[in-house]
Amino acid sequence: MRYQFKITGSGYYLPPTIETSLELSQKINKDIKWIISSTGVEERRISEIDVDQMGAIAAKGAIGGKPPPDLIINASGVPKQTIPDTSVFIQKELGYEGIPSFSVHSTCLSFLTALNVAGSLIHSKIYKNILIVSSDRGTRGRNFDEPESASLLGDAAAAIYLEFSEDNHQGLIDFDMSSWPGGAELTQVKGGGTNLHPQDSITKNEDNLFSMNGPKVFKYSLRKVYNMISEILDRNDISKSDIDLLIPHQASGRGVDAYSKYGGFEKEQVMNIISKTGNCVAASIPLALAMAFEDKRIKKGDLIFFAGTGAGLSIASAVVRL
Amino acid sequence: MRYQFKITGSGYYLPPTIETSLELSQKINKDIKWIISSTGVEERRISEIDVDQMGAIAAKGAIGGKPPPDLIINASGVPKQTIPDTSVFIQKELGYEGIPSFSVHSTCLSFLTALNVAGSLIHSKIYKNILIVSSDRGTRGRNFDEPESASLLGDAAAAIYLEFSEDNHQGLIDFDMSSWPGGAELTQVKGGGTNLHPQDSITKNEDNLFSMNGPKVFKYSLRKVYNMISEILDRNDISKSDIDLLIPHQASGRGVDAYSKYGGFEKEQVMNIISKTGNCVAASIPLALAMAFEDKRIKKGDLIFFAGTGAGLSIASAVVRL
Repeated sequence: MRYQFKITGSGYYLPPTIETSLELSQKINKDIKWIISSTGVEERRISEIDVDQMGAIAAKGAIGGKPPPDLIINASGVPKQTIPDTSVFIQKELGYEGIPSFSVHSTCLSFLTALNVAGSLIHSKIYKNILIVSSDRGTRGRNFDEPESASLLGDAAAAIYLEFSEDNHQGLIDFDMSSWPGGAELTQVKGGGTNLHPQDSITKNEDNLFSMNGPKVFKYSLRKVYNMISEILDRNDISKSDIDLLIPHQASGRGVDAYSKYGGFEKEQVMNIISKTGNCVAASIPLALAMAFEDKRIKKGDLIFFAGTGAGLSIASAVVRL
Repeated sequence: MRYQFKITGSGYYLPPTIETSLELSQKINKDIKWIISSTGVEERRISEIDVDQMGAIAAKGAIGGKPPPDLIINASGVPKQTIPDTSVFIQKELGYEGIPSFSVHSTCLSFLTALNVAGSLIHSKIYKNILIVSSDRGTRGRNFDEPESASLLGDAAAAIYLEFSEDNHQGLIDFDMSSWPGGAELTQVKGGGTNLHPQDSITKNEDNLFSMNGPKVFKYSLRKVYNMISEILDRNDISKSDIDLLIPHQASGRGVDAYSKYGGFEKEQVMNIISKTGNCVAASIPLALAMAFEDKRIKKGDLIFFAGTGAGLSIASAVVRL
């Protein structure tokens, strides 16, 4: 066991407002069949509250009646604002003061990166309990002139509460990540920083919107993801059938299906929520996890495999024994 | 010792272009005496290359002839762009592919937060060596209608290379952080995220610029910083005179002086570079560290105390035995 911990709480927030792909079809000038065959997304949620409020609702579900966390990690793809980082605003919404908080950012993989970081910090017993919150409002940055990515994005937040586990079979068994700048241009929001600053005259509106070449991301990452999964399973002497649930980043319908179609997992092993939520950026993975807990699809002792790709282009995998 | 590690390399980049406070005085409609008495900044650097290139130059200095790092952590205040995170672009500039990389963000305290995270990951022996890079180009977001903060900001990048140390007296002795959302409004860049999106008609140009109420930050944090330092020293049985060098965030001239004026340290114990560099956001602390190494002001075995405040409002302290 790399890092001993247990997930003692999880929560999520799915905004009540649903946008169907039929409704979206008019905005992007594509018919509903094209949307569903290209992305697998039938509907997505549109949030009317901001990422800090969304994150706080999810966090309250994860905290429940437990004590306030020792540390709050925001693990989202896009911030509320440039400064301060979003963790502070989530803490504010939760009504806390004085809890150390910061953000971990690796776009859609932020939750997995944060899980490895939090696992390490918990295992070293410096923090007794850590709250990880992923909250993304991707629909704020949709480019309706790019129909595929505009169809994919949806809003959601999810959170987990981590504590040290005395059981040395419980926690993070393994984690791996690799980042490939050669694929950096395949998924971008070019604005919002020093590169194309909002005040620069050359910055175009579309620079501040999400852009992704889904098919190229898929092609660039398929073999890399497959190899990483195989290596992790091999070095931990785990077979695919040992995995109780594979929770992939909900990148696209095709991306999720690839784990069963090419990855050698059974379709029933793979958590698939994309048709009803879309790609919720960093919130997708913890959302799927929190929903699996809620549905009692997973329980203590289960072996969970997390995997995904993110802008960067980065790929990551984590194996957790609940 | 909390986390055993050694800093085996450090590097920095100070852009060649100097802007004196006399030159700046015309832009902000204040005379040079006002600038120097308000901020302590005589000159600052203005970068003509972006944060990834700046960070890569600093990183090359830190890496030297050593192997590529196992992990790259970008620990900066403001990103190059919203997505992907800046670590990927730094990796690209370094000519690497496949190294896991992500960002840690807690504004001006990002380097200290990353040091605690990297220390934990190194100590757990998952990574053999980690590169931490802080690169900020604060002058891109100056608001000339806010003379004090506009006078403070300067551009710089700095990096360190961390390895596990077999010596259990070498590494991070202690770290503490607390975040106070009650002070969130005192230091902000309100734009650049979902709150005031660049495409929103209500977003004003100034929302995308740096805003800080320096005197209020000072008042809000003085006692908190002092108490945190006292507690860390007490619980580790370290006296102020044991500290070979105190490296504070270079928030302002007054902020740096406070460690000797109110904090009980000798002026000679406190690293003070603000008059020549300004407040370089997250890069200030590692820049001061890298310059202290370069000047042979610190050496193996020395006890270093890091402290600072950042937007959030957050405060943090770290004690490191080199």
